[in-house]
Amino acid sequence: MKIVIVGGVAGGASAATRARRLSEDAQIVLVERGPDVSFANCGLPYYIGGEIDDRNKLVVVTPKILETRFKLDVRTRSSVEAIDRSTKIVRIRDLESGSEYDESYDKLILAPGAAPLRPPIPGIDLPGIFTLRNLQDVDRIKTVVDQGVKQAVVVGAGFIGLEIVENLVQLGVSTTIVELQDQVLPPLDKEMTTPLAEKLAEKGVSLLLGEAADGFEQTEDGLVVRLKSGQELPAQLVALGIGVRPENKLAVDAGLQVGPRGGIQVNDHLRTSDPDIYAVGDAIEVNDFVLGVPTQIPLAGPANRQGRIAAENIFGRSSKYRGTQGTAILGLFDLTAAMTGASEKLLKGRDVPHQVVYVHPSNHAGYYPGAEQMTLKMLFDPESGKVLGAQGVGGAGVDKRIDILAVAIQAGMTVFDLEEMELAYAPQFGSAKDPINMVGFVAAGLLQGDHPQIDVAKLLDTSSDDRPFLLDVRTSAEFAAGHIPDAVNIPVDSLRSRLAELPSDRELAVYCEVGQRGYLGTRILNQSGFTAMNVSGGYMTYLLHAAVGESET
Amino acid sequence: MKIVIVGGVAGGASAATRARRLSEDAQIVLVERGPDVSFANCGLPYYIGGEIDDRNKLVVVTPKILETRFKLDVRTRSSVEAIDRSTKIVRIRDLESGSEYDESYDKLILAPGAAPLRPPIPGIDLPGIFTLRNLQDVDRIKTVVDQGVKQAVVVGAGFIGLEIVENLVQLGVSTTIVELQDQVLPPLDKEMTTPLAEKLAEKGVSLLLGEAADGFEQTEDGLVVRLKSGQELPAQLVALGIGVRPENKLAVDAGLQVGPRGGIQVNDHLRTSDPDIYAVGDAIEVNDFVLGVPTQIPLAGPANRQGRIAAENIFGRSSKYRGTQGTAILGLFDLTAAMTGASEKLLKGRDVPHQVVYVHPSNHAGYYPGAEQMTLKMLFDPESGKVLGAQGVGGAGVDKRIDILAVAIQAGMTVFDLEEMELAYAPQFGSAKDPINMVGFVAAGLLQGDHPQIDVAKLLDTSSDDRPFLLDVRTSAEFAAGHIPDAVNIPVDSLRSRLAELPSDRELAVYCEVGQRGYLGTRILNQSGFTAMNVSGGYMTYLLHAAVGESET
Repeated sequence: MKIVIVGGVAGGASAATRARRLSEDAQIVLVERGPDVSFANCGLPYYIGGEIDDRNKLVVVTPKILETRFKLDVRTRSSVEAIDRSTKIVRIRDLESGSEYDESYDKLILAPGAAPLRPPIPGIDLPGIFTLRNLQDVDRIKTVVDQGVKQAVVVGAGFIGLEIVENLVQLGVSTTIVELQDQVLPPLDKEMTTPLAEKLAEKGVSLLLGEAADGFEQTEDGLVVRLKSGQELPAQLVALGIGVRPENKLAVDAGLQVGPRGGIQVNDHLRTSDPDIYAVGDAIEVNDFVLGVPTQIPLAGPANRQGRIAAENIFGRSSKYRGTQGTAILGLFDLTAAMTGASEKLLKGRDVPHQVVYVHPSNHAGYYPGAEQMTLKMLFDPESGKVLGAQGVGGAGVDKRIDILAVAIQAGMTVFDLEEMELAYAPQFGSAKDPINMVGFVAAGLLQGDHPQIDVAKLLDTSSDDRPFLLDVRTSAEFAAGHIPDAVNIPVDSLRSRLAELPSDRELAVYCEVGQRGYLGTRILNQSGFTAMNVSGGYMTYLLHAAVGESET
Repeated sequence: MKIVIVGGVAGGASAATRARRLSEDAQIVLVERGPDVSFANCGLPYYIGGEIDDRNKLVVVTPKILETRFKLDVRTRSSVEAIDRSTKIVRIRDLESGSEYDESYDKLILAPGAAPLRPPIPGIDLPGIFTLRNLQDVDRIKTVVDQGVKQAVVVGAGFIGLEIVENLVQLGVSTTIVELQDQVLPPLDKEMTTPLAEKLAEKGVSLLLGEAADGFEQTEDGLVVRLKSGQELPAQLVALGIGVRPENKLAVDAGLQVGPRGGIQVNDHLRTSDPDIYAVGDAIEVNDFVLGVPTQIPLAGPANRQGRIAAENIFGRSSKYRGTQGTAILGLFDLTAAMTGASEKLLKGRDVPHQVVYVHPSNHAGYYPGAEQMTLKMLFDPESGKVLGAQGVGGAGVDKRIDILAVAIQAGMTVFDLEEMELAYAPQFGSAKDPINMVGFVAAGLLQGDHPQIDVAKLLDTSSDDRPFLLDVRTSAEFAAGHIPDAVNIPVDSLRSRLAELPSDRELAVYCEVGQRGYLGTRILNQSGFTAMNVSGGYMTYLLHAAVGESET
């Protein structure tokens, strides 16, 4: 068995080592365009800022280790130029010498990855404008940074863009973000990004939303970034983080099927339209695990697993890739933002029925010092209660809860299963009612009709005339510190004795700070002849929405 | 509907508030022997050490809040003395006045909890000897501690015992632990407690295993604790943490069924043998979720959920309690130890077929600063691969991985599902191959026969003559720093060229530091005509076992 693997980073390297473990005899040729194999892509931004101080740490495995330990035939600085599927031969170009030669294969694995987008706008190729994909990119950026950068512009506020921003800020660079969409971290729903935008402002980062770079010009001091709006930003460093496109040229030229967004199409064994060719990693189209539709989600974990699965299939195992959930996480200073499964906007866009709940719990028992608050948003099926997606933003413990919800989605669990989860509790680690249980309680109560609910988004979309009567059941002190406009305050503890003050001919929208007292208030009112709904996630959820301009108030 | 609830802490308070949410009209009487309801049991040890500095923080909910917000009839310092099931009347004693009166019920919920064991040994009632159950206990201990304690003895090295130890050490108290069993934290398997014992030693705690208190005597300085061995320990404070027994007297006197270990028996709706009486919390016998057998596991999370479920059943919902997994966690200085599901000793004791694997991963990518190591042990069904139990010990991130495995057990997932878990990865939070994926890879490889394995415990149990040939595939430097006795060193990177040095007529047990190179070595050897097994979890697992004396070497 002779296997040729195109690409030696996450998916390619995993495929190669798995293949070797499965077969001592196989001939395995790993062809990599760059000088490095298997480096730590996800660590690159942290080397810019110096959090990772030793470049060697970014090298996960050297070609030498792959050769000696795994008996792989590693060919770096080599590019596969063409595939002849009829003869099962690839043409390889040695990028050092420029010479080309043929290599035969029994099975071919494509793991070419995805390339950062460089939009064709004037000046895009000027020095000082970078994308960040590999060690050579980071070396170039590091060189510029070490020479001293006062001002930087980061185009694109996705995961990589924001990680670069954090690292530039740590270095004291005055940084501006330019993002085409009207929010940072576009995979998340807009209101969940409010704490991120606030954190960026707190750190002195200038955030320009709904804005795009239109051109770059060289100046004495470096560059000027010209924006669509006409605004001009001086910068000595520009980083582009506006997305990636699958490296599909080889596949397309060879006549392999690719999807509408360019991803190489594979079946659930990761086999392409040619049965002797597999494809893995950022270059492929995957199945969205929740929605069951084709998509492209470039993530390191899935790439690694896909590499393993392709190798297993080559050696006769019928391993399947179950699809990608899009579990992803961002650290931004002391904040964490993470998601798994479908977002609300994705569900809305595809008309998938869903319900949404918000909770704002602490990561551990409030009575133990150091508790940090988070907001969890969960989306679920209104009939079965099946969990469809979740997002979290806040301090410590967001990663744990999103991971738990990722597993719940994988297992096809419902909100009723979340109620019953038995998670580790001591006051440093969690609560007797963990945030996961809480989100389950709220969602289950909603499905069981205990707990009619109105979304903040819907409330804000309704004109003032048509809005329900807004009842704030917090304390008068909380009310005085800030409330939803037009709300009337009756603290929950005196609600039963003040029912006469409320209109019985109008719907009531009840809210408190996070939703718990609002829930009790709703229960009291509905059992007393009123028609009340709890405002999902309370005043804190209102603030998240209001801050991103979904309210006219 | 009139509901009387006996006990106002975790399960009782949850039942009461859930009942009110379900019914504004119900009359709900909450009878609690102590002066407090719903306090933070699990926080009590941390108030002793001062980590929690404000006693008010330990009060989760006051009787007043329960009365005003939830319209509950709260009767603290009141004890239910008897149940007349035929007339559905309880006899309540006012502990302040001593007077007694009758109260009728439609439904009765028993949530009396469990009482710490006080063995009837001489001197047990001397001043200075404490158990820790409620705020009054902690006040008494705090008083003694504030007067100055030089030496303390903690009897019992379970969760509460070790939490008290940590807090006493933080106060500078010279502390000795006396534990009857041959390990600390007996719910865990012995080798997994090695890091805990080492941490206690590092902190200057004296640990006496296989030892018990035999008597207490008063001296001028305080107390002397006389041990079974005859040893005598001076102490000004003795804390007993040797377990609890269900408070079942009321139930037994009323003729309700209790289990062999005293737990009140309930069905999966938490109904006792009397259909009008429910029971929840530490007083009941529960179903072991993994083994499907009755057991008693006092835990706060399950108690809270049981309270909710009992209330729901009273109001006509058919909610079921699915059983208890025994998910529990301990913080011990900078270490975390946690478990979920069945331990190896429990599976062995019940002859449940199982396989075991160990991994020693970092909580996040090793290339990012601050990675901390953990050991994960997982038990699973040898046929289906279903996860049966897991234990973790180490630094940060143990809680997250045990929670994920707790959910996997709840969902009935297999080791193959762990391979596929898509968890949140950025270098501060995890790895592209998360510890959970790793433990899945190892276990799946074992089940698929890729990866014959020998347990360290089995290796150490085998006499030297019958042992397989021990091959250490680490580097010569690692080998020189310490190895399993009689092992021969051939680094994995030169293994292929040195096969001739190995015996072909003996089984080979291959090991490295954590198991990964050992796995590759095993693959190389078995594909080259040898019969090789990987030593599960490598040299680190060997050290865990050897340290607790499971080795004669």
